[in-house]
Amino acid sequence: MFPDRLLRVVQLLSKLPGVGEKTAQRYALALLTGDEGVTRDLGHSLIELRDFVGPCEECGHVAEVNSDGDGEVGARCTICSDTRRDPTVLCIVHRVQDLLAIERSGVMRGRYHVLGKLLSPLDGVSQADLGLERVVRRIRRSEGQLREVIVATPPSVDGEATALLISRELGALGVNVSRIASGVPHGGDLEYADQVTLGRAIEHRRRFG
Amino acid sequence: MFPDRLLRVVQLLSKLPGVGEKTAQRYALALLTGDEGVTRDLGHSLIELRDFVGPCEECGHVAEVNSDGDGEVGARCTICSDTRRDPTVLCIVHRVQDLLAIERSGVMRGRYHVLGKLLSPLDGVSQADLGLERVVRRIRRSEGQLREVIVATPPSVDGEATALLISRELGALGVNVSRIASGVPHGGDLEYADQVTLGRAIEHRRRFG
Repeated sequence: MFPDRLLRVVQLLSKLPGVGEKTAQRYALALLTGDEGVTRDLGHSLIELRDFVGPCEECGHVAEVNSDGDGEVGARCTICSDTRRDPTVLCIVHRVQDLLAIERSGVMRGRYHVLGKLLSPLDGVSQADLGLERVVRRIRRSEGQLREVIVATPPSVDGEATALLISRELGALGVNVSRIASGVPHGGDLEYADQVTLGRAIEHRRRFG
Repeated sequence: MFPDRLLRVVQLLSKLPGVGEKTAQRYALALLTGDEGVTRDLGHSLIELRDFVGPCEECGHVAEVNSDGDGEVGARCTICSDTRRDPTVLCIVHRVQDLLAIERSGVMRGRYHVLGKLLSPLDGVSQADLGLERVVRRIRRSEGQLREVIVATPPSVDGEATALLISRELGALGVNVSRIASGVPHGGDLEYADQVTLGRAIEHRRRFG
C-alpha cells in the first residue's frame, strides 16, 4: 500500500513515546505532503542533534557540544554555566523533563544533577549504575560551598528507594540532604486522592506558623 | 534552558498535526536520549522521503519515484500498478488517509483518485483547483471500460459541495456517479447521533430485501 521509504518513516516515528502506528502514519503523511522545507530541515536537524547535543559533563542536563576546532570538547549546559545560580544548593532529579518542570516553578535557584535512571532491582539498575560518585566529587570539589542537596526523584517505589540511597551516601559528606514534599497536589480534591498520597499528606503534616 | 539545536527540533516537531510544544519537547528529548541509530535513521529517512516519494502521476496516491538512471521518471503507486484491480470502478477521495481507510474495509476492488483538496470558497479553493480534468481524461482514456465513479469525499459541507460538483462534471461522460452512504455509524447509538446525521439516516432509508 505504501512505498518502502514511507513505511520506514512510519516505523521509526512509531518508536516515539506514546506514538502508535496510526499516529505515526498521520505524522509521516504530514511530513510527506506538507511543507517540504520543514521535513528536510527536521531531517538535517535530527542528524545534527546527535552530532552536537549531548549531556552536560557537569550535571547530565542537555548541552551543546563545544568544538574548538581540534575535535570534541566537553559540553556544559546553560544552568551550570550561569554564574548567577545559587552555588549552595544542588537538586537531584531523575530526568531532564523533571528538571524542566522544576525550572518552570521558578523556586529552585541552585544547580541540578540529572541521574538519568532510578534504582530498580527488577530492571537491573543497581547502585553502581546511578553514578553517585559524580555527585560526591562535585560536593567535595565545592569545598564546603555546596551545603544542601534536594532529592527530587519522583514519589514512586523506585524514586523513594533512590532518594533513600542518596541520603545515605551523601549524609556523611556534611551536606544537608532533603526530600521534596509529597502530598495532595495544589487544587487537588481529597475525595479523589489515592490512599498512599492521602496517607503521606497526613503523615507529613506541618504545624501552622 | 535548551541548546539551540534541540529547540529547533522541538519547533519543527510541533508543526506535526496535533502536536503541541509539550509533546514536541517529549519527542525531541526521546530522540536525543534514546537509541542514536533510530534518530539518525529517521533524519536520513525524512530527507529521502522527500527525494524519492511523491504523488502517483495517475491517481495522486503516494508512490515511490522511479529513477531509471537518466533523471526522474514519473511515480506510479502500487494500486495503479496492480493489474488485479477492477478497472471498471474509480473511487474519488479527499486525502490519502481516506484511501487507506477504504482499503482497510476491503470492499473497494477498483482504483482511486486522490483530490488532495475539497471545494472551499472560504479557503479560496475553487473548481479549477480540484484538477477534475485529470479524472475526465482518465475516464476518456479508458474507452468505456471505466463505468462507475464512487465519490467518497467526507459528509461535510465542503465534501458534499465537492461531490455535487463531481457528479455534475462527470455525469455527461456516460459513467455512473454514486455517493457513499451517510447515516448512523455501525455500532453507533441513535441517542448520541447528531441531528444532521439522524436526519440523513432517515431521509436515505432503504427498503428491506
